[in-house]
Amino acid sequence: VSLLVVGSIAYDSIETPYDKIDNALGGSAVYVSIAASYYSQPVSVVGVVGGDFKQEHIDILKNHNVDLGGLKIVKDAETFRWAGKYHDDMNNRDSLSTELNVFAEFNPVIPEQYRRSEYLLLGNIDPVLQLRVLDQLDNPAFIVLDTMDFWIKGKKTELMEVLKKVDMVIINDSEAKLLAEEPNLIKAAARIMQMGPKYLVIKKGEHGALLFNGDKIFSAAAYPLSEVFDPTGAGDTFAGGLVGYLHKTRDLSFENMKKAVISGSTMASFCVQKFSTKGLENLDAQQIDKRYNEFIELTKIND
Amino acid sequence: VSLLVVGSIAYDSIETPYDKIDNALGGSAVYVSIAASYYSQPVSVVGVVGGDFKQEHIDILKNHNVDLGGLKIVKDAETFRWAGKYHDDMNNRDSLSTELNVFAEFNPVIPEQYRRSEYLLLGNIDPVLQLRVLDQLDNPAFIVLDTMDFWIKGKKTELMEVLKKVDMVIINDSEAKLLAEEPNLIKAAARIMQMGPKYLVIKKGEHGALLFNGDKIFSAAAYPLSEVFDPTGAGDTFAGGLVGYLHKTRDLSFENMKKAVISGSTMASFCVQKFSTKGLENLDAQQIDKRYNEFIELTKIND
Repeated sequence: VSLLVVGSIAYDSIETPYDKIDNALGGSAVYVSIAASYYSQPVSVVGVVGGDFKQEHIDILKNHNVDLGGLKIVKDAETFRWAGKYHDDMNNRDSLSTELNVFAEFNPVIPEQYRRSEYLLLGNIDPVLQLRVLDQLDNPAFIVLDTMDFWIKGKKTELMEVLKKVDMVIINDSEAKLLAEEPNLIKAAARIMQMGPKYLVIKKGEHGALLFNGDKIFSAAAYPLSEVFDPTGAGDTFAGGLVGYLHKTRDLSFENMKKAVISGSTMASFCVQKFSTKGLENLDAQQIDKRYNEFIELTKIND
Repeated sequence: VSLLVVGSIAYDSIETPYDKIDNALGGSAVYVSIAASYYSQPVSVVGVVGGDFKQEHIDILKNHNVDLGGLKIVKDAETFRWAGKYHDDMNNRDSLSTELNVFAEFNPVIPEQYRRSEYLLLGNIDPVLQLRVLDQLDNPAFIVLDTMDFWIKGKKTELMEVLKKVDMVIINDSEAKLLAEEPNLIKAAARIMQMGPKYLVIKKGEHGALLFNGDKIFSAAAYPLSEVFDPTGAGDTFAGGLVGYLHKTRDLSFENMKKAVISGSTMASFCVQKFSTKGLENLDAQQIDKRYNEFIELTKIND
């Protein structure tokens, strides 16, 4: 009974108004698995890196008890690289370069021991690959899908196939409107759930997140941060905290999903406070509980 | 002991993707006073209209027990007119025309019987006029200020004088960043409170609102509306519900202010469901309570 994550593993070069960093550990599977590890261990990862992937980064994942049995290392090739620059308000960024490298020919093979995974997070990769992952799995209890505007625009047919097979989708508000072709977010949410997933989480960055299930809606606040150092990976970290919490509690009630959303928000708030994965590497349960409770207090009204 | 509102009274021509309406009742003092009337009566208004202002619109205000002792009617001039068009997503609008008419020479004179008002809402008008209003009042217990980007850009010096004298400011997120000259909303909030007001409410439209007081923050959700017919007046209506609730309860604790913010959000959610003031005209206490409780449920997590 385990939690499987399929996604990218990357070296990111990031520039923000605060600082600049080259070849830092990144990628959806990395952020997801580290964030989820604070709730449930081990998290199993399927992904690919090049021969240049450093031992110190393997060690960071191993320190969080991430099971790398599904990590493929292509010795004579390079790890996926992304470079981006954030603007002053940190809500907008420019992608400066994307070098797919080993990721260009990534064909996820799910090792035998992972095929009966109960919880699956399909990280933000080509929907064609997401379908191949789903074909190899033996009926997981709960499947969470992450995707982005690039695939909504470029691989909509394949993405619609994926949507039919997943339980929950996590996307941001502009992507939700794009996917549903509907400017009203509430209508867009209803339309996306008609495409397949029973649960939908819409991330709104500095405005929090919304959880939908049928007619039920939960609105989660954003943590009021006066310094956002690096938003890279915040969405993946959110997904990781959410699915890690669900996997730990094995409770798919709407009431428990609210707590999973707050857990995701909690992890994302730590993520953006430092560059790369640094904000996630050395947390303890007490810090996480404290932040979680601060989230609860933000919206609490005492009668 | 009363609640005084000083602001604009207007005829609005509005076009949305749904419909088009000409010369509909509008203006900050109108929306504020009708919204506040559901919590506390009478609300007294100081404003100006032209000889073209219709009896039916006077009647709408009177039906809500709005005290029009401070309404100046300039017989041979026209009422302030505004025309605007909303885009498909309803979050953006173009101002098509603004005819100040009687409003160009508006010099608010506070009638003797209002000078000891305990609660004052300074609607979104020229800060020079807001200062003149403050000069005529005898130390109100609680002063709420509404303003907008136009005054922040054009009359900053005068606006800073007003800010020193008020207890609460209500503005939207882009205006808060503009006023504080700070892209981070949390830092911007701290900076605005240093300008004078102890309480700050930042409206975020479809993302809800934030209430600040020193280090304390409350995050209010937005009501999930699948149809927004006309956003005109939503901000004024929010302010009206908020100040009406505060005036009714006479409780300036942070805990009670949270409820005031939800009351403002409740009224604003009704406002946008119909054109002009139509959504506010015929509400009853039961509808308002129901909507208020739906707001509470949106963010509630049961332990």
